[in-house]
Amino acid sequence: MTQKTQERVVYVNGEYVPEAEARISIYDSALMFGDMVFEMTRSFHKKQFKLREHLARLMAGVKILHIPLNQSVEDLERACLETIERNDPGFAADDEHRLMIDVSRGLLGIYRGVAGLHKGPNVIIADFPLHWTVAGMGKLFESGINAAITSQRAIPAILLDPKVKNRSRVHYLMANIEASKLEGEDNWALLLDPDGFIAEGTGDNFFIVKNKTLITPEGRNVLRGISRAYIMQELAPQLGLPAVEKNIEPYDVMTADEAFMTGTPFCMIPATSLNRVPIGDGKVGPVTRSLLDAWSRSVGVDIVKQIQAWDRQRTADASGAPTPYSFKGKK
Amino acid sequence: MTQKTQERVVYVNGEYVPEAEARISIYDSALMFGDMVFEMTRSFHKKQFKLREHLARLMAGVKILHIPLNQSVEDLERACLETIERNDPGFAADDEHRLMIDVSRGLLGIYRGVAGLHKGPNVIIADFPLHWTVAGMGKLFESGINAAITSQRAIPAILLDPKVKNRSRVHYLMANIEASKLEGEDNWALLLDPDGFIAEGTGDNFFIVKNKTLITPEGRNVLRGISRAYIMQELAPQLGLPAVEKNIEPYDVMTADEAFMTGTPFCMIPATSLNRVPIGDGKVGPVTRSLLDAWSRSVGVDIVKQIQAWDRQRTADASGAPTPYSFKGKK
Amino acid sequence: MTQKTQERVVYVNGEYVPEAEARISIYDSALMFGDMVFEMTRSFHKKQFKLREHLARLMAGVKILHIPLNQSVEDLERACLETIERNDPGFAADDEHRLMIDVSRGLLGIYRGVAGLHKGPNVIIADFPLHWTVAGMGKLFESGINAAITSQRAIPAILLDPKVKNRSRVHYLMANIEASKLEGEDNWALLLDPDGFIAEGTGDNFFIVKNKTLITPEGRNVLRGISRAYIMQELAPQLGLPAVEKNIEPYDVMTADEAFMTGTPFCMIPATSLNRVPIGDGKVGPVTRSLLDAWSRSVGVDIVKQIQAWDRQRTADASGAPTPYSFKGKK
Amino acid sequence: MTQKTQERVVYVNGEYVPEAEARISIYDSALMFGDMVFEMTRSFHKKQFKLREHLARLMAGVKILHIPLNQSVEDLERACLETIERNDPGFAADDEHRLMIDVSRGLLGIYRGVAGLHKGPNVIIADFPLHWTVAGMGKLFESGINAAITSQRAIPAILLDPKVKNRSRVHYLMANIEASKLEGEDNWALLLDPDGFIAEGTGDNFFIVKNKTLITPEGRNVLRGISRAYIMQELAPQLGLPAVEKNIEPYDVMTADEAFMTGTPFCMIPATSLNRVPIGDGKVGPVTRSLLDAWSRSVGVDIVKQIQAWDRQRTADASGAPTPYSFKGKK
Amino acid sequence: MTQKTQERVVYVNGEYVPEAEARISIYDSALMFGDMVFEMTRSFHKKQFKLREHLARLMAGVKILHIPLNQSVEDLERACLETIERNDPGFAADDEHRLMIDVSRGLLGIYRGVAGLHKGPNVIIADFPLHWTVAGMGKLFESGINAAITSQRAIPAILLDPKVKNRSRVHYLMANIEASKLEGEDNWALLLDPDGFIAEGTGDNFFIVKNKTLITPEGRNVLRGISRAYIMQELAPQLGLPAVEKNIEPYDVMTADEAFMTGTPFCMIPATSLNRVPIGDGKVGPVTRSLLDAWSRSVGVDIVKQIQAWDRQRTADASGAPTPYSFKGKK
Amino acid sequence: MTQKTQERVVYVNGEYVPEAEARISIYDSALMFGDMVFEMTRSFHKKQFKLREHLARLMAGVKILHIPLNQSVEDLERACLETIERNDPGFAADDEHRLMIDVSRGLLGIYRGVAGLHKGPNVIIADFPLHWTVAGMGKLFESGINAAITSQRAIPAILLDPKVKNRSRVHYLMANIEASKLEGEDNWALLLDPDGFIAEGTGDNFFIVKNKTLITPEGRNVLRGISRAYIMQELAPQLGLPAVEKNIEPYDVMTADEAFMTGTPFCMIPATSLNRVPIGDGKVGPVTRSLLDAWSRSVGVDIVKQIQAWDRQRTADASGAPTPYSFKGKK
Repeated sequence: MTQKTQERVVYVNGEYVPEAEARISIYDSALMFGDMVFEMTRSFHKKQFKLREHLARLMAGVKILHIPLNQSVEDLERACLETIERNDPGFAADDEHRLMIDVSRGLLGIYRGVAGLHKGPNVIIADFPLHWTVAGMGKLFESGINAAITSQRAIPAILLDPKVKNRSRVHYLMANIEASKLEGEDNWALLLDPDGFIAEGTGDNFFIVKNKTLITPEGRNVLRGISRAYIMQELAPQLGLPAVEKNIEPYDVMTADEAFMTGTPFCMIPATSLNRVPIGDGKVGPVTRSLLDAWSRSVGVDIVKQIQAWDRQRTADASGAPTPYSFKGKK
Repeated sequence: MTQKTQERVVYVNGEYVPEAEARISIYDSALMFGDMVFEMTRSFHKKQFKLREHLARLMAGVKILHIPLNQSVEDLERACLETIERNDPGFAADDEHRLMIDVSRGLLGIYRGVAGLHKGPNVIIADFPLHWTVAGMGKLFESGINAAITSQRAIPAILLDPKVKNRSRVHYLMANIEASKLEGEDNWALLLDPDGFIAEGTGDNFFIVKNKTLITPEGRNVLRGISRAYIMQELAPQLGLPAVEKNIEPYDVMTADEAFMTGTPFCMIPATSLNRVPIGDGKVGPVTRSLLDAWSRSVGVDIVKQIQAWDRQRTADASGAPTPYSFKGKK
Repeated sequence: MTQKTQERVVYVNGEYVPEAEARISIYDSALMFGDMVFEMTRSFHKKQFKLREHLARLMAGVKILHIPLNQSVEDLERACLETIERNDPGFAADDEHRLMIDVSRGLLGIYRGVAGLHKGPNVIIADFPLHWTVAGMGKLFESGINAAITSQRAIPAILLDPKVKNRSRVHYLMANIEASKLEGEDNWALLLDPDGFIAEGTGDNFFIVKNKTLITPEGRNVLRGISRAYIMQELAPQLGLPAVEKNIEPYDVMTADEAFMTGTPFCMIPATSLNRVPIGDGKVGPVTRSLLDAWSRSVGVDIVKQIQAWDRQRTADASGAPTPYSFKGKK
Repeated sequence: MTQKTQERVVYVNGEYVPEAEARISIYDSALMFGDMVFEMTRSFHKKQFKLREHLARLMAGVKILHIPLNQSVEDLERACLETIERNDPGFAADDEHRLMIDVSRGLLGIYRGVAGLHKGPNVIIADFPLHWTVAGMGKLFESGINAAITSQRAIPAILLDPKVKNRSRVHYLMANIEASKLEGEDNWALLLDPDGFIAEGTGDNFFIVKNKTLITPEGRNVLRGISRAYIMQELAPQLGLPAVEKNIEPYDVMTADEAFMTGTPFCMIPATSLNRVPIGDGKVGPVTRSLLDAWSRSVGVDIVKQIQAWDRQRTADASGAPTPYSFKGKK
Repeated sequence: MTQKTQERVVYVNGEYVPEAEARISIYDSALMFGDMVFEMTRSFHKKQFKLREHLARLMAGVKILHIPLNQSVEDLERACLETIERNDPGFAADDEHRLMIDVSRGLLGIYRGVAGLHKGPNVIIADFPLHWTVAGMGKLFESGINAAITSQRAIPAILLDPKVKNRSRVHYLMANIEASKLEGEDNWALLLDPDGFIAEGTGDNFFIVKNKTLITPEGRNVLRGISRAYIMQELAPQLGLPAVEKNIEPYDVMTADEAFMTGTPFCMIPATSLNRVPIGDGKVGPVTRSLLDAWSRSVGVDIVKQIQAWDRQRTADASGAPTPYSFKGKK
Repeated sequence: MTQKTQERVVYVNGEYVPEAEARISIYDSALMFGDMVFEMTRSFHKKQFKLREHLARLMAGVKILHIPLNQSVEDLERACLETIERNDPGFAADDEHRLMIDVSRGLLGIYRGVAGLHKGPNVIIADFPLHWTVAGMGKLFESGINAAITSQRAIPAILLDPKVKNRSRVHYLMANIEASKLEGEDNWALLLDPDGFIAEGTGDNFFIVKNKTLITPEGRNVLRGISRAYIMQELAPQLGLPAVEKNIEPYDVMTADEAFMTGTPFCMIPATSLNRVPIGDGKVGPVTRSLLDAWSRSVGVDIVKQIQAWDRQRTADASGAPTPYSFKGKK
């Protein structure tokens, strides 16, 4: 994980600039309105996972927000791969590439007279080490997190559609702050929608396991995660586990056998309690483990061991740059 | 309005940088979550209007979002004034200073290892000509706008508090796009809250006049505008007009005598119809006019004439830099 | 109350036709969509009460529904008065004129080819004896009604504005049917809005009296009745009673001192219980009585005695034409 | 399509009257409360389609509204067929019979003394040329409509059950007026329910096609259309297309492959955009076409060609009686 | 059914006390907050039915309410059986054992100084004759009940989870009182949830039968009844009847073929009308009968005949102790 | 505070029984449905405070729940006073009398055959030392509490009216448990209603102070506290402070100058932060102090000093019986 000396570069509208230069004008619609769609990916053994699916979801958001982007999925994919190629020499051998792909509308009309600025749309592709994002998570694969239902609710799709992955999400941050006020270091916010159904974490999807069946909230008020789809459509069938979308409530979680959250950087994290009520026997369960194993086998990387190894290195290396997630329990 | 040659500078964390360099890192919480509070002000005859009130509202947002800012209102005020002082030589004699004051949390924890970036919080103060923002609005003071209720609703405060003036507002943009699909060039989006009460425009507050009384929506699901407060607490009492906060609905607007929107850059714009149903006799009304007059007198600037003069200059000057508001009818 | 021999006529688009001929084409928008605004008035000593106010409310509805009516309030008023003049000879000396004024859009476009039909808008003014409407109500002035909260809720204004007095109100009928299933003959439906606030009856407004103050629901989800306004703005001030609009709930009613409903035909009816919980001491209260007295004095008609006299005549006259209100407890 | 000289007659409570005489008394519950259930059918090659299903739905409404109707489905069916038989000689050879079957409760109790009026219930069966209803729709089969989500929401069933096909629907009209204010001539209103789910058009049901599967909103807040059922239960199985009921939202539509609306007069109309966001590639899709083809084959009438032929005749014949749908884009 | 002389005893925290002594301190959390979970069971031929399932549900509630109970399901089961054993000698030969199993948290902290009181948690097991609960229900198996939708709604799970069977349910009582005000003796309250979906009775679940399929509300806002599960998972499959959970509304009930309620003491009661609108032909239907028959066969007791026999005995025996259910139509 | 030897007695349906014998049958409606109304009072210098107001509220609940109680307010008052008289000899000189007055409907009909039980209604009056309830609160008068908004919402009055002070309130307990999971010992739950307005604590009302004005939530979704009324109607006017009822939201609290909670046992407790965002300067404010002082003067007891003295005694006396409030931060 030793950072090499070569500096990372970021793709910005067709050019590659040093990472610290990858910035957005204060007059950009992204900053004025949170008007930016984005994706964040990861690699396994340096090979991007489901990049196409991420880009397709990005393009759906572009269309729905009426951003006049001229590039195709293929164009973006090429740019992603070139960005990785340029940065890889600076990555440690055991590192993985986490891409952040941003598309914003660009300058609002009234600021178009400002000289020296790209009018937009803006396309930005950053590439940084995955271990930043998962720093400190290693132990959570053993203990599981406590899913904490916050007073902050998910905003329902009729008001702000979470299925368009965009940057207007200060309410996720508020939920993270709220969870950080709870006792313990293992609280991850879990949002209910206004109907009381489990929606999602603040950047992750949620599953329960009941009688060997995987159940995840309907796609209504949640980001439809790529990891979520991978489990539903590929891993679960492989393991012969039925997987269904259903409205679920805290009661269903508290009477389930197991639960876990999914997210691109860490794949799956067990959730062993909800508001400190143990889920099942309060331990990481066999279905969760078998899914993690199957995922690891499928991508040729031991997902848990990789993250735990990074944590050990970070602890050993006292200068350990990346602070693990800043609000307690959540990146 | 002729732009002078001197380049504008922007205050960024204590330094002054060229306007095109005022940018935010893609790793900043502002871009990751729309996690930035802001204010936008204006001057009259180059003197800032209600700057203290704007800064106090900014600080309320900083506190509520738990942004660990060390600067006081006084510090920020000094920076604002210095920014203006530095930029004024480049402003035309008939121009006004529009400040944009942004405060973001800064880099999320996991990105704190990126070299060369300010950790945060970030304080940014830009200063640009007011006429950019109000370009093309001159004629609307004569005809009034059509307030158009959009399918997009205001997000109620329980989910995302509009009283914290922040950047998670892509739903405002969606409402603007929706209004731009209507026939006519004079449509401004007007948002209902989920209870069916008039909330606000996408950057403006709304008033009706009924029997010489000013009525504006309760402060619940709206940004509590500085212009709104100025009218309620200063102008209306001056003119002997009662002014009340009340839940109002489309029916109340359609049976009112007059209506108008308020916003810092243009102060007040008459609304002469709602969904094309004429309000009163469908013309700009006497109370609206008397408020605009009183405001103009109070600040020593004819608000309407100033904007109309800029519009004429812009039309005359074919190279007219700023495109008037990009979605039809709204900046 | 003896019906004279002369037949009643109805004003239909400028002509007077026999009452049984006052009909609307099945292709009219009124029948296709409930797309008709209307008013129903009454006289005292044959003089119309608040006719102007009724017509103004009618015109607000016409405007909001975009019905292209060319007639003015004055035109309609003249037609109303002429209708009465023509019908009065057929009215008994002790009768009162109840007008029903209907305005519909007329034939929908696709039916405009049907020969022999008025295209529209249609204006219809019928004039019939008030005692039809109040038949059987005499005794209720002594005992009071039982206000019965129905499972059927008021439709909130955001979905169907009750302030536009129109014919899309089958839900009122459903509430009446529901109330008719209750034990007793004195149940009048009282609708809650979806927030649980008292809204209105199915054709009447509701008041409570608490500590000598009149309280009626805010004008939001109710028809803003002419009788309601008369009490608030004229009678209550006359009697020195404060009168306020406020959200009220069943608890407020059950802990009030008195309550009553208001409606044009009967002016005011005491409500002595809510869901069989006595209001105050369960008897008609002094404030209710004093308001009824003041109203009677003001119009020169003893409102209660007049209705009770009609009831006695009807009972005496076995052929008594008008059936009192068909669903139990409600016309 | 040349109208023959024989006049159309309408069945009214057992008698046949000239079309212009088919009218409802202003004292009828249908006009007082929108208290009328109805059905509108069509023929293919002059043979009624799904008449039984329409009548069964009518009878469900009669029962739920407690209308004391003595006639059976068989009685009504006989009356329908006789009405057609009487009118057919006046229909052009290429015309189709559109029936409108109305049942109202009749005179409210207090008006039962008015002489010369049928007490009720009223049963009315009109029969007019289908081409009136579909005038101008021919070209929409090529371009598709733009489904326009209106600010006006569907009224949820808990407040006014759309599954009872009745005349209290001025809110549909309001939605049509709202859609008519949009740019373009091809906008059809599409109503969301208060939860943000797609409900229905203002007289039509909505389908999307995704991965060769037909998806239509659950039957909760929609009229359960006969055409909708025909597609779900007969056409889709015939073509081997899975067809499901599901809560769908705008996002689902905007990421679908195809979409269409269904309604008795036109069977199916493609929807190629939602709020101007293209659906799929923005063109009429293959599944939509194959359903239309299958339907045409099944009834022996080329649905699209028939409507387009009527449009050509109407244009050629300058006197073209029926105005195509009066609010832009919708009948 | 003749009550024998031996007195019944109740298990209270490990001891057996006379029934009249089975009481809870006024300082107990059960009385302060309704903070008690419970189950009520029955026997067939004196053998408990689904006791394990009842105890498992009880334990879920204990866990969710964070009641620190040390006993296991096995412990509780043993106590239940011993309680029956001790009481059985006092039961008539044709009687059945109805257990009431209560678990409360115990004394709130501030009352822990009161001498002589068990601190808690409290475990109480009472055992009384089933015929008390079903007194007077015999005839309802012939006529069916009228399900009456009350103004009182079910409290949705997001606010108070009905799936935790606890004692905070005064709203059920309010619904019973409301139903008792309706005409007739056969009204049982049926609660809608705030979305307008059928939820449950005030102690029973609800089913409809449509086209030989059993449909019951989703488990969201209802107590997930043991009888409900028995029908869904055992009886329906035995009879080859599909059984599904689905959101259902009054319309669905009024257009269903049959309906019934389920509850532990009476198993199933036919519902032959909803708000007096007949369901199907308004008679007890064949599917309902066949389910009752299958249940009777399965447990070796004719469920209906047993209850009707008790009713006859009670009538014959004028001193008939237990008053049948106190609010009309419901225990 | 030394407990004297005499045992406390409790009034139970006209008799006085030892405290530990004050119990309710498990068959009582209070335990079956949480169907019990109650009041809890306190004395100052052994004199009951606002006893009449408490009893009047109790009687409103009795009426609304249709409990057939024969006793009058005067009867109850006499019983209260006699209970105190009997117990006072056992109270320490510096103790205060806290009464708990319970009224339950009594045995449900089906249990009326159980011998030896009072049928009901039950009236119970307990009298215990106030210091139990306020144990440990002394320090909170210095530091203030942190009001913690819980995920658990207040149940709105339309579903369960909090204005009827009854025992169906397990949701309050859930909120207390939730607050106990937060970091710190000073968290008191504060419930929002589903509209996002501040409702109440779990046994207390909430006030903010802004510009010397007292603001408390409207009486809709809250228990209308006696202390709340005392401040609004007596103390505030005495001190010349305007006091208003208004919908308030978290934003209003976080931008207020001061805040406090009110409840009978402790009168007023300062709230110095909301979700750890400081209110005002985060210290106990002058208006709060002046209200506490005025209250103390008015009743002749230093409210704060009395509670702090009890706390010191309790600490000194190691055997200190009453455990301070069991869930962290709340009794």
